[in-house]
This record gives sequence, C-alpha cells and structure tokens, in this order.
Amino acid sequence: MVALIRKDTSDKQLDELIEWLGTMNLKVHVSKGVNQTVIGLVGDTSGIDIELLESLSIVEAVTRISEKYKSANRKFHPDDTVVEAGGVKIGGGNFAVFAGPCSVENEDQIEFVARSVKNAGASVLRGGAFKPRTSPYDFQGLKADGIELLEHAKKHTGLPIVTEIMNANHLSLFENVDIIQVGARNMQNFELLKELGRTGKPILLKRGLANTIDELLMSAEYIMAGGNEQIILCERGIRTFETATRNTLDVSAVPVLKEKTHLPVIIDPSHACGKARLVKPLALAATAVGADGLMIEVHNDPAKAMCDGPQSLTPEQFEDVMQSVTRIREAIL
Amino acid sequence: MVALIRKDTSDKQLDELIEWLGTMNLKVHVSKGVNQTVIGLVGDTSGIDIELLESLSIVEAVTRISEKYKSANRKFHPDDTVVEAGGVKIGGGNFAVFAGPCSVENEDQIEFVARSVKNAGASVLRGGAFKPRTSPYDFQGLKADGIELLEHAKKHTGLPIVTEIMNANHLSLFENVDIIQVGARNMQNFELLKELGRTGKPILLKRGLANTIDELLMSAEYIMAGGNEQIILCERGIRTFETATRNTLDVSAVPVLKEKTHLPVIIDPSHACGKARLVKPLALAATAVGADGLMIEVHNDPAKAMCDGPQSLTPEQFEDVMQSVTRIREAIL
Amino acid sequence: MVALIRKDTSDKQLDELIEWLGTMNLKVHVSKGVNQTVIGLVGDTSGIDIELLESLSIVEAVTRISEKYKSANRKFHPDDTVVEAGGVKIGGGNFAVFAGPCSVENEDQIEFVARSVKNAGASVLRGGAFKPRTSPYDFQGLKADGIELLEHAKKHTGLPIVTEIMNANHLSLFENVDIIQVGARNMQNFELLKELGRTGKPILLKRGLANTIDELLMSAEYIMAGGNEQIILCERGIRTFETATRNTLDVSAVPVLKEKTHLPVIIDPSHACGKARLVKPLALAATAVGADGLMIEVHNDPAKAMCDGPQSLTPEQFEDVMQSVTRIREAIL
Amino acid sequence: MVALIRKDTSDKQLDELIEWLGTMNLKVHVSKGVNQTVIGLVGDTSGIDIELLESLSIVEAVTRISEKYKSANRKFHPDDTVVEAGGVKIGGGNFAVFAGPCSVENEDQIEFVARSVKNAGASVLRGGAFKPRTSPYDFQGLKADGIELLEHAKKHTGLPIVTEIMNANHLSLFENVDIIQVGARNMQNFELLKELGRTGKPILLKRGLANTIDELLMSAEYIMAGGNEQIILCERGIRTFETATRNTLDVSAVPVLKEKTHLPVIIDPSHACGKARLVKPLALAATAVGADGLMIEVHNDPAKAMCDGPQSLTPEQFEDVMQSVTRIREAIL
Repeated sequence: MVALIRKDTSDKQLDELIEWLGTMNLKVHVSKGVNQTVIGLVGDTSGIDIELLESLSIVEAVTRISEKYKSANRKFHPDDTVVEAGGVKIGGGNFAVFAGPCSVENEDQIEFVARSVKNAGASVLRGGAFKPRTSPYDFQGLKADGIELLEHAKKHTGLPIVTEIMNANHLSLFENVDIIQVGARNMQNFELLKELGRTGKPILLKRGLANTIDELLMSAEYIMAGGNEQIILCERGIRTFETATRNTLDVSAVPVLKEKTHLPVIIDPSHACGKARLVKPLALAATAVGADGLMIEVHNDPAKAMCDGPQSLTPEQFEDVMQSVTRIREAIL
Repeated sequence: MVALIRKDTSDKQLDELIEWLGTMNLKVHVSKGVNQTVIGLVGDTSGIDIELLESLSIVEAVTRISEKYKSANRKFHPDDTVVEAGGVKIGGGNFAVFAGPCSVENEDQIEFVARSVKNAGASVLRGGAFKPRTSPYDFQGLKADGIELLEHAKKHTGLPIVTEIMNANHLSLFENVDIIQVGARNMQNFELLKELGRTGKPILLKRGLANTIDELLMSAEYIMAGGNEQIILCERGIRTFETATRNTLDVSAVPVLKEKTHLPVIIDPSHACGKARLVKPLALAATAVGADGLMIEVHNDPAKAMCDGPQSLTPEQFEDVMQSVTRIREAIL
Repeated sequence: MVALIRKDTSDKQLDELIEWLGTMNLKVHVSKGVNQTVIGLVGDTSGIDIELLESLSIVEAVTRISEKYKSANRKFHPDDTVVEAGGVKIGGGNFAVFAGPCSVENEDQIEFVARSVKNAGASVLRGGAFKPRTSPYDFQGLKADGIELLEHAKKHTGLPIVTEIMNANHLSLFENVDIIQVGARNMQNFELLKELGRTGKPILLKRGLANTIDELLMSAEYIMAGGNEQIILCERGIRTFETATRNTLDVSAVPVLKEKTHLPVIIDPSHACGKARLVKPLALAATAVGADGLMIEVHNDPAKAMCDGPQSLTPEQFEDVMQSVTRIREAIL
Repeated sequence: MVALIRKDTSDKQLDELIEWLGTMNLKVHVSKGVNQTVIGLVGDTSGIDIELLESLSIVEAVTRISEKYKSANRKFHPDDTVVEAGGVKIGGGNFAVFAGPCSVENEDQIEFVARSVKNAGASVLRGGAFKPRTSPYDFQGLKADGIELLEHAKKHTGLPIVTEIMNANHLSLFENVDIIQVGARNMQNFELLKELGRTGKPILLKRGLANTIDELLMSAEYIMAGGNEQIILCERGIRTFETATRNTLDVSAVPVLKEKTHLPVIIDPSHACGKARLVKPLALAATAVGADGLMIEVHNDPAKAMCDGPQSLTPEQFEDVMQSVTRIREAIL
C-alpha cells in the first residue's frame, strides 16, 4: 500500500502518522521528494481501511497494491482449483453443464427433465426447492419436498444435484445435495457465507446483480476463511440501464476472474437474459469466452412452468444448445 | 392487467388462452379490433407472472395496471403511517433524526456520542453491533456486547435505539432494541424479512444498492405480509457509474415513494456519499426534498473509528448540521 | 398504441380525449369494461409522444405496440441488409474483420499494419485520423494527413478503409473513405447523422456508451430517414458500475439487434475492455454470439502507440485471434 | 504521478523506463524499497496516458495525483468564477433561475411564458429553438425563427436568453443569444466545444447522461483551452438502473464540483425527473444542496406542449416553486 502525503504536511504530522502505522505491524518506508512524500507500507495490509487512510487530512491519495482476498487469489495459488462433486469435476480444463428446471414442481417433472438433460450431455442436475421471489405472493418452492424429489432423480440418473439455500437453518436438509447454491441476492449475506464455510460441501456462489468482481471474490473469501475452498463462481448478468434483456451478461468477467483467482467460473445465460430464445447465443458466447461450465434452465413445458418459464428451454432446445456448445469447446482447444 | 394479442392469432388459440386465464379466477374482457385484440384481466392479478404471459407466442405485450404490493400501497391506505418507537414518532409530519456511530466500540464512546447527539436534537440513537463487512478480515462488530452497551446508553439518555440485524437467529438479542435495521445487503434476504414480519418491532428497511423503488416496496411487503406494518424505508444511495461519491444518493426516491406508499421514508446521507464533508449538503437536500427523517453517522473521533470513519461527523459538525436542518424544515412547512 | 383510462373518468373527459386523438389521423377504438376502459389507437402512432399521453390526468398507462423506427425495423424489412464497401460484404452471412491502429501515426506504421492485418485475414483497414479525446491536451490525430495515409495503404493493399468523422464540415475529406465511422460519443449528434444520411457512403454507427439498443436504432433511423440505408451497427461496451474492464461488453445486444433490425451488427472488443489480453476471449465470444464482424485494434508497437496502446494487439497476436475466430465461425455454421 | 514497479523488474528494465520518462520532460524520482520500487514523476504529467503506463509489463499500478483539468481546477483558481450574461450574475453567491418552455412554439406562447417567469422571479429566459430529439420523426424546433422569437421576448421583458446549439455552423444565428447551451448529448462533441471556446459567449454546459464529473470538467476544459472561461455547469440527471424517474438526479454532484472547480453549477430538475409533480421537491433539494441556480421548464399549457410537456410546470406552479426556493435560500445562508 502506498500513501501520498500532501505538500504542506509538517514533519511532526508525518511522524505521528508513521508512528500510528507502525502500531499495525507494518514496515513503513518513507521516500521524501522535493515536491511530494510517498509512504510505502509493507506487510499484511489487508486489515487497513483504505478509506480511513484517505480521510486523514495530510494524505493526498492511497493506492492498494495487494488485493484484500488471499485464499481466492491466484497470486498465492497459481494452479486452477478443480471442484469435485458427486464424481463430476469442474475447473482446470473440466467443463460441466448444470441443467434443470428453475423450480422442482413434482416427481414426473423432475424425473423427466433429469433424464432429458442427462441424455443431452448435462453433468449436474439443477432444480430450485427454496425459491427467492421478489414478491411474497409468488410461488416459493416445494422446500424440503423439492430436495427429496431431487434426491430421487439423482438416484435414478446418477447426476449430482445442485440447489439453492436461503437460510443456514435449513442446512441439515442439504446433506445429500452435492453442490449448495448461494443465489445472487444472498451473495453478501455474510452470516450465510460463514456457515457455508464450515461445511465441506462445494458451493456455487452467484454474483450479485450489482456486485463488482472484487466483491464476488471477497464473498468467496468469506467461505474460504472458514476452511471450505470448494467454490464455483457464477456470472449471471448484472444490472445496467439496458432493459432489452433482464440483466446484462458480463462475459468479460470470465477472463478477468481467471486472472485474479484459481476458482472455476461458470455462466448462467438463462437468468442473465430472461428469454429462452437468447439462451443459445449467450451459451455459445460463454463457452467461447472460456467459462468452465454453464448453468441452463430446462423445463418440460416452459409455458406452464411455475416460475421463470420464459427463460427455460425445452429438452429439444437444450439438446441443440449442447451440440453447438460441444463444437465451440472443440474450436477453442 | 392488459394483454395485446398478435395479429395472426387464430380464434382457437385465443380461446385457449382465455380458458387458461379463466382458471385463475380472473374476469377476462376481450375487445377485438380490426388490427389488434386486447384482453383485459380484472380481479386479483398479483399472482400472475407477467413474464410468463409475455413469453406466450400469441401475446405481443402485457401491461400491469395494479402494482404487486398491496399492504404498502398508498392506493389502499391513503393516510400516512406513523411509526412509533420508544416514544418517538416517524412519518405523517413527524421528522426524526437517527444519529450515532457506525460501530459501537466501547462504553465511553457510545455514552459520549449518545449524549452529544441527544443534546444536538437527535431523536434516536444508532450504533452497529453486528457489522456486515465486505471483507472477512475487517472488524465485524461487538455483537451481543454492542447491543448491551446500546441499551445502557438508552437508559442513560432516554433515546430509543436502532441497530442492524444480520441473522434471524439473533432475534432474541434484540428484545430491548426499539427499531431493528435491515441493511442494504439484506434487503432481499427474504428469509430474514419473513422472520421480522412475525415480530412486533418497528423495522428500518434500507434500499439495496442496486434495487429499484418497486423492489424496495416488495421487500416491505414481505414484512407486512407477516403482520408487521411498522416499517420505515431508507434511501442510502444507489450504485451507478459515478465514482466521485461512494454511491449516488437518489433524492428523487423520496417524492416517488411518497406517492406510492404510506410508509415513512428517511435518508442516510452518510453511507450514500462516504465522505464527512458531503454529509451536510446532502442532509439539507434530503430534508428539502421531503424526507421524514435522516440517519447520520457521528463519532467522537472519526479518524480512529473502527469502521466508516471517513463518513462520520464529529459531534460539533453534527450540531451544525442539525441547526441547518431545522431551518430547512421551517422553510418547507 | 393502447391507453388505459382511469376509473373515475367522466364520459365528457373521455369524449374530449377521443376527439383530440382523432385530430392526429388515428383511428380510435374504445372498449369499456366494468372496471376499466381501454383505448386502442390504430394508424401511424410514431409521431405521438407517449410521455405526453401518460401525463394526462385521465390516463393511467400507455403501451406502445409498434416501435418508432421503421426503416431499420426487421418487421418491415425481413431480409438481412448486406452492406458493400470497396468490394467487401458485411451482413447476411458475410463476416468481416476491421483491423488497424487506433490512430494513423505515420506512413511506415500504417503500411506495415495494413499488410500485417491483410495477411492475417482482415477485410477492412481501420485507422483514426480525427480522434475524439476526453482531454484537449491529448493527441487529436493527424487529421487530413491521416486520411491521405490511409488512402495510400488502401492503394497498396487493396483493403477498403474505415475512419471516424467528427464534424460534417470535414465530409469532403472522406471522398475516398469506404466506410465512415460515427463514434460512440457522437451517436446522438443528430446534426451529423442527418448529414451522413445525405451521403451514399456506408456508415459504421457505434453504440453510445450509455445508450439503449432502441436509441441506437433511432440513430440509425436518422441516417436512413435521409435516404442512406447502408449502415453497420457496432456494439463496443456500455458503461456500468463495474470498473475491472473499461466498459462492459454487451454481447446480448447482438441477438437482440438481430431480432429487431435487418442491419448488420459487429462488435469492437478492443474498446470494450481496454486491455489487449482480454481482446481474444471477447473476440471469440462476439463471434460465437453471432456478430457479423469484428473491429480490432492492431499496432506494430502497442507500448509506443500514440493512443489506446494498452488495448492494441501486435500483428502476431492478431493472427492468433483470427485463427481462433475462423474456427469459431466454422463451429457455429 | 506515482508508478509502482513490479517486484521482479531488472535494473536494466527500470533504467529503460526512467530514460523513456525522462524524454517527456519529467523529473523522475526513484525510491527503491526491499519489496517494491516506487517512481514519482514530477512536472507536467497532464500529457501522460495513464493507461499506457499501466500496460507496461514492469508496472504494477499508477496513481495520478494531479487532475488533467487545469483551467477549470479550483486548485489553481481558488476564487469562484462569476459568469455575467445580459446583466445577470451566476456563481460566487449569485443565484439565478433559468425558466421557460422546452420549445419555442409561437410568439404568443413565448411572450406569455417570458412575462410569467419574469414576474415569478426568474433571471434568464430559456427556450429551445434547435431541439435534439431521439426520433427523426419528432418535432425538431422552429430553428432560426425560434431564436428570433426569443430575441423579441428578451426585448419586451429584459430577460437575457439561453438556447441550445447543435451545430457550430449555426453560430451566426446566436449573436444576440446571451448564453449558449450545450446539451447533454453533445457534452463530448469535442468539435463543437472547440468552436465555442473561440466565442466570447457564456456557455451552459450540461452533463452527459452517463458522463462522470471528471469528464464534465474535461469538456469544460475543452472550451476553456480555446480562451473562453465563461462556463456554467449543469447537472440534469444521470442514467441508472432505476426507471421510476427518467434519470436519477445526482445532487451530490454539486458539492463535489464545488470542491473541484471554481465554475458555477446549476441543476435542471425538469429533465432529471421527467415529471412535473417531482420538479418542486427536486428544485428545493437542488437549492438546499448548494447549487448556484436552477433551470426549470415552464409552459402556458403543458398538456399541449410540442415537446416535454409532461415535465413542464404551469406559470402558477412555477411561482409556487420560486417562493419555496427563496425560503430555502434564506435558510441556508
């Protein structure tokens, strides 16, 4: 961390600052120039509040050199993390497609969709049991029953399952769930993240719709700080001024995240656009940009889906997407 | 709700749609024109998924006439709600200032700040005990001890207290807290909102940093759906492309919310801008735009605050702000 | 266009509104329901100000069914437009890559880059002569001399050339330019668009950094209204809260535009991200999402480029990108 | 400017960088630490491209200490600029209200509105003659005739006039216009700004709807670089994700601009919100936050205005706003 000191600072003021910084176990390196003085702080600066330092009257500007995330940081862990869940690998060259309905609705539905997506080449079955809905009057999911139906589908197809958690008190219900999903709205529900850090389960962490890439990494860091390093990051569209799509899919997040972190990164084109007919081109873009996988909504009868029907593919459409995705994967190898 | 049907729709398709809509207990009113057919849906349309309807191949566009929020809707409750907490009234012409430190740090600090803000005219003491921090390595608050210190300060000054909850499991600790705050990051933590709907406590609900005004009202609706109608809404800045301020304070949200809802609306200029020297002009703007109150961070020694120091006022600065706020209040009466 | 009338509207008020609408040469179709009245407006509603209609006290809401753009609208021109410039076709299945330096700097540079990008498979040579720079103190381009150098490079390589216009008064200098570029900052410089509508030149119209897809189409409409229908649209990143990339590349804009318009759509990954090492993954994503072409900055010595060096590829890097782009093109056919 | 050098940089690489920087007439100050080397650049760094420096492989990060704007910078011109136009002063404690119709429509209209706003206390008459409209099919203004009508109204009322320019070729028509307005869409039409820098006319420069405060200052700098220092800045709402208002009025821009520049800053609440009933609260907020003036749309018959009717006040509403604004001005003195 480097702090630039204002021109009119007295020696006494500077000494006080240096003394204060010294109490934080940092080595302080001062270089006085004719026109400006620069203070370099060496050591573990992750605990320093950059805004506090900037607010001091004698400080002109502060630049943080090292990021605040450590466990998630590729600098300290250059090799790709490969997350393993129910026999499926994600990351480090392993591409995985998570597919299934937005909500688990009943046994017939989830069994049919599970078989369909498996046949088309999906690696993981997704399905919502606890549903975060903007309105309290909307369908909130089958909850425990939904998880049970997912477990049956897993038994019958062999596909590992991923489903969203909204409350740490429900954790016992997720014992047979292979990957626990944290939805975009809970990306900064730090209490939930801490609890998940204490489980040994792979976590699928979705980017909040207005959260920066660095904030996503800090949320991963919350989970990792508890000892759980099995995290898959997921870009699912950010909120911008454009209303032609529900959100704006930020494909650049993939190569940017790949530089900053060793964790696998997947893309959810379905939630990003909110329209089934845009899912295919976005899935191809996501694959081409280098994502480690995709998360795609598939429903047996999208027009009658209990939630997010407009963005769900039919099994036939999904099969078509998978074939093109496979060709793109081959093209970028 | 009004749906516009595509030109090339057959009578059979139209009949099927009408039949399906009929199953939802809605009265369907069809007006066929030469060039277009319009379907009006009368009844309780709050359960209809507008995106699902729009995704049907024969539907051109759908317009929702009635909002999805009911309990929070001024149409159905034209009179202002006045929230009462510890003898203080907020809303319906009652202006209240919530002031105090970002974090409760120790007894001396909170007692000193409490007395200072009371003398300057604040009505409610704020202070963080559980702190949501972007980094797991940052100070997370004194937790239960912090709440206890707030209770002492309340006893000594008579000021009701407000503090943030991050986990419904902590609710028992909030028994003597007068107003429970839901932070911006938890505005769509629906599980928490549902729990708070079951308490009888006034809730201070902060707008998420990328949430629309309508989403804020839907989150209020979650709490109200549980039976708790004592809600204060709080605008605290939204995330935009501008980086000169931490967030962009959306003062327009106040008159817009006043039209849509009967709930009181306050503004938190401290979090919006992140810089102490901008708090005064924004507090004055917030008062002038018609807010029912303000939430302002005050610290005995901002430079040494354990969090958010840069945006805290000294007690002297706060007193100056209060005097100007009072003059603005008189000017707009 | 459909207007919903408020419940408490008197017959007299309604009659006055209908009479007023009648004066605009629109057929008015009224359907009165028990709870609401809907007015359908049939005819050319492109001249009606939707906000004015909404502001009338008796109107609850207005929905525009038909878009305001006509010449650019795929509804009225279902077949893809193919733009031809200097023997190169863009659109309708014809993929074209525009490559070259941000700024033309001198003869050696532009000749070297032109040959390099031609050898690598580029179809059009780009190069800035008039440069829009945020600071008046930055390099503003070689102007007329730059265009002359581009013309020489065109003669030597056979590549058609594209360069940006900033002032309609410069039009005479663009006589031998094959495609005239309108930069993002001038997307709503309507005076310039009108002048370009009177030329017979193909126009490359870049999306403004905070303009919606519909606004981009309205700007195309300005040019087309003057009689010039040879327009190529270009997505080049939009401004969002994310600062990890200079802008956020909105790849979804391609399939959305393809639905709405018959005009070709290309993507400029270089300006979107601002970093050379992100250009390749974004170029691949752009190709996979279905763009009709790419615009890529290539410089012989990026570290010494007079502007936008950080985002320029070397000729070697460009060749590598072209090879991968070609494979993606084959994969999506 | 301070550059941080990567750990693994060789002495030879460092020497080459220093030599290169030396060629730019900058004094280079190197401070080598055990873990990092910092290079300070002293002199006129306004011509250095920070992104280019950051792209060098041996550079970790760069911090600009001095802003790129000089003429507009309060550091070098601590005293407030007072703009004088037609006998009216703006800035330096002088508060001015610009009022009038969005478009000049005919003689009766502009004369009536001019007298009305003068009686209510406005200092400057605004009225659009050249109108930038998103659609080529919308009313584009009376052009030269509109300016002539404004001049008549000026003669009859004594109010100086302000109107928008869209094309530098029209400058001769603006001879009797007191303040020339640059609209939001042209804030980065650098060719137009340069031309205006050569006039001696006061310029009202509106912030682009997605431009940062620093970009607004750089655009002012373009005009000032030409010798014209009579500039009034205008905040008129920025584009965000929120759709409840047309734009989001960024009131924080006023105190932020006041710190950075000596130029006067006014606010246009009418364009920011797009709804007449929100103009009053926003005008009061703008006054309370410290703006040097307001720009408000007033129309004799808003429902029949040829453009932007929904946001125009009637003369009676404007009078009411002026009275409240006056009281706020007194409250903040």
